[in-house]
Amino acid sequence: MATTFGYTCGLDAAVDVIGGKWKPLILWALHLDTRRFGELRRDVPGVSEKMLIQQLREMEGDGIVHREVYREVPPKVEYSLTEFGESLNRALIPLSEWGEQHMERIGAVHRCPEDYAARTP
Amino acid sequence: MATTFGYTCGLDAAVDVIGGKWKPLILWALHLDTRRFGELRRDVPGVSEKMLIQQLREMEGDGIVHREVYREVPPKVEYSLTEFGESLNRALIPLSEWGEQHMERIGAVHRCPEDYAARTP
Repeated sequence: MATTFGYTCGLDAAVDVIGGKWKPLILWALHLDTRRFGELRRDVPGVSEKMLIQQLREMEGDGIVHREVYREVPPKVEYSLTEFGESLNRALIPLSEWGEQHMERIGAVHRCPEDYAARTP
Repeated sequence: MATTFGYTCGLDAAVDVIGGKWKPLILWALHLDTRRFGELRRDVPGVSEKMLIQQLREMEGDGIVHREVYREVPPKVEYSLTEFGESLNRALIPLSEWGEQHMERIGAVHRCPEDYAARTP
């Protein structure tokens, strides 16, 4: 297959931006509302502080996430989606619906029952 | 956020199935046509034999990919998408279009110019 800008196809490029487990979840959380760091950590279960910082930096670099620093004491930092990030989030809706529809089937293969119990409140 | 079947949301579950760089590309290639192993390796640039075998096994386990073995000499093996795999592929179309639309912008951040030259025929 030929490549354009180093990519095989549009999906290849998109996956380069949302790559990994965390970014789609961060996107989803930020699409619901502007979030402070601590709020994001609660919204993305299982993510470590270090990993969340790294993912947010990469998303900022990609122009997906906007980081607003309010000069207060103590300083307040808020994360939100840019218009580019909103467009990516919209493109993820059908995939999200597919996952929602088949969650039980997927969970049966990927997660063990103990894991459900531990993570489901 | 509450979890269902171990997932935060549908997107979390979907990402568990398409996780990583290779599976979306394999899905895309198989959606175009049934493929033999060697054909898939050519369609997914940069994937190693070991990695492709592993990804195909996982996708078979998830019910996304069907593996048909023809009892010939030498044996012929063909990979195709199941109906479940086709439904996942359809859910990925808007994401693929988003990537296509913004490929240049994404490439400028993620790939170095030397890399384009090396990968673009």
